[in-house]
Amino acid sequence: MIVLFTDFGVGGPYVGQVHAVLAQQAPAVPVVDLFHEVPRYDIRAAAYLLPAYTRGFPPGTVFVCVVDPGVGGERRAVLVQADHRWYVGPDNGLFHVLARRARELRCHEIRWRPALLSASFHGRDLFAPVAAQLVHGLMPDCAPATLTPPLPDWPEDLPQVLYIDHFGNAITGLRAERLGRGIRLRVGGAGLAYARTYSEVRAGQGFWYENANGLVEIAVNQARASDQLGISVGDSIGMYDA
Amino acid sequence: MIVLFTDFGVGGPYVGQVHAVLAQQAPAVPVVDLFHEVPRYDIRAAAYLLPAYTRGFPPGTVFVCVVDPGVGGERRAVLVQADHRWYVGPDNGLFHVLARRARELRCHEIRWRPALLSASFHGRDLFAPVAAQLVHGLMPDCAPATLTPPLPDWPEDLPQVLYIDHFGNAITGLRAERLGRGIRLRVGGAGLAYARTYSEVRAGQGFWYENANGLVEIAVNQARASDQLGISVGDSIGMYDA
Amino acid sequence: MIVLFTDFGVGGPYVGQVHAVLAQQAPAVPVVDLFHEVPRYDIRAAAYLLPAYTRGFPPGTVFVCVVDPGVGGERRAVLVQADHRWYVGPDNGLFHVLARRARELRCHEIRWRPALLSASFHGRDLFAPVAAQLVHGLMPDCAPATLTPPLPDWPEDLPQVLYIDHFGNAITGLRAERLGRGIRLRVGGAGLAYARTYSEVRAGQGFWYENANGLVEIAVNQARASDQLGISVGDSIGMYDA
Repeated sequence: MIVLFTDFGVGGPYVGQVHAVLAQQAPAVPVVDLFHEVPRYDIRAAAYLLPAYTRGFPPGTVFVCVVDPGVGGERRAVLVQADHRWYVGPDNGLFHVLARRARELRCHEIRWRPALLSASFHGRDLFAPVAAQLVHGLMPDCAPATLTPPLPDWPEDLPQVLYIDHFGNAITGLRAERLGRGIRLRVGGAGLAYARTYSEVRAGQGFWYENANGLVEIAVNQARASDQLGISVGDSIGMYDA
Repeated sequence: MIVLFTDFGVGGPYVGQVHAVLAQQAPAVPVVDLFHEVPRYDIRAAAYLLPAYTRGFPPGTVFVCVVDPGVGGERRAVLVQADHRWYVGPDNGLFHVLARRARELRCHEIRWRPALLSASFHGRDLFAPVAAQLVHGLMPDCAPATLTPPLPDWPEDLPQVLYIDHFGNAITGLRAERLGRGIRLRVGGAGLAYARTYSEVRAGQGFWYENANGLVEIAVNQARASDQLGISVGDSIGMYDA
Repeated sequence: MIVLFTDFGVGGPYVGQVHAVLAQQAPAVPVVDLFHEVPRYDIRAAAYLLPAYTRGFPPGTVFVCVVDPGVGGERRAVLVQADHRWYVGPDNGLFHVLARRARELRCHEIRWRPALLSASFHGRDLFAPVAAQLVHGLMPDCAPATLTPPLPDWPEDLPQVLYIDHFGNAITGLRAERLGRGIRLRVGGAGLAYARTYSEVRAGQGFWYENANGLVEIAVNQARASDQLGISVGDSIGMYDA
């Protein structure tokens, strides 16, 4: 299985061109559009979302990961083997959190290049063909490498809103398993207690819960949390004992 | 064929995770993304759209239907057999209109549960695996059931705007076959006569017609009806003889 | 391979219904969603985007192309063979630029009709079934035809913004291979020089470059060009020697 994780958006011409390459070079292999609205250009947000949304996939899955504002410049292309899954994409910090949390890890710089490589669309021209080789058991020309560390200090977990979903829920960079259920969160002006799910709070009440991918998510029963609590992508989250 | 009918939106991580489950549990079965912008949480709107947009599919089609604000709470999971097609989803009224119009109907409560069931994403964890079993001819563990009736009185047809499409057209809950062609509609301040299609009215003129799924749809030739007539989802529609 | 190029938008019920037809009539054939946000109803914009975004596909590819404000009226349905690829859609100008640039060209009026043809959704009812026949090597009932010429004079290249992508980049109707690298563009109030890619200009600077599909595209390094330069779809582009 090949899985796409990008900031390409949907509707426009980018996702389809990647699919077209894969339909030719990896026919009959399922291709899953996992996430195409990772916040644009936001490598850090993507880096904390990546391990949460790619966990649980079977061994051998190949992820094509593209949040790549430096495309066409100096940044390297890498292939990351983490816990029996493959990740292909730019070496710009995108794989940093994933690598930190992996039990087994091997990194490679991708040396292989296609006959035609555009300056601005390596997802189509480089990463998708590499993914097609990998699902067929072929290893593209690579060299051992270590990932370039990201410039700023990135914490273990990121107490920030990374994504507002279609329902107005705010997905954060915090792993719920690391937070006691008595912890309260502060975001915008609101203080939020834990609840297991929507029906445990009254209509209109905000709360935090462990979402289906293990992250802390902020929601309001029967309303849009982003609107009602005035939450935006990038907002910091405070934590305190209740 | 497995067909998805949800309020998940596109671009975010929900549709892809359902596809990933199906790629593993029902490989080589086509999966169609029929509708992912059913108005969020609006069970009634979804219930009237469902029979219109799922008609015409071949016998044996399995529909995964998720508009599920009560996920994680008390509501049951159901499997509805209607006219030789299968519908899997929450027992919250979503299947009420479909069931009322079916010629043959059998309802089951789904007892089967996966090893891991999140509190907030039964589309991925419960309904998709049940669909995979059904397309393989396997019946999950079920008990006979009747659908829980919806609380309010739901009319035969719903004289309301249920969805504004990408072109600004307003899709309603009225079946066109039940309206005489001489009927005029009133929505917002506008009175609208019937026309067969766009080219039968002059540019800028509003009209109603039978859309390609049998519902009354309100449009303006060469303009966005929602903008020009000031129509929003939820608006009531009046009907009167011309 | 069948490739979809439409103004249907995503999330709503139109793309999925086309896929459902193809899953039944062309099972196991890959279907690629290339572009579903071609500007609504804008036949001219679509006509200049079409050859750029469909180049590079293998011989035998069948494109279903639907930007069709005149659906249900007098316009003919056509099948265009251009350079060993097939294009199916309305005869309303959509194929005009493609045909003008083709080395080999044959046009046919589609006479075949399905048993059930809605007035408003020929993409599902007519064009998709024709595509399914073509990928199976079957020729639907057709008559030789010439394309109806578009009414206004359409230039060789269109110096206009045709599409703003998910990143705020402005895609134009100009082929980059026809512009000297010393040419400057004027759009909105801004004058823009050529650069090969983002990393060649400083953060916040606008430039034009050859995008991965051969068109002139206007971008700003690390910002949204559409916002920062105040560019909208339809804006004219001036060209002058630097």
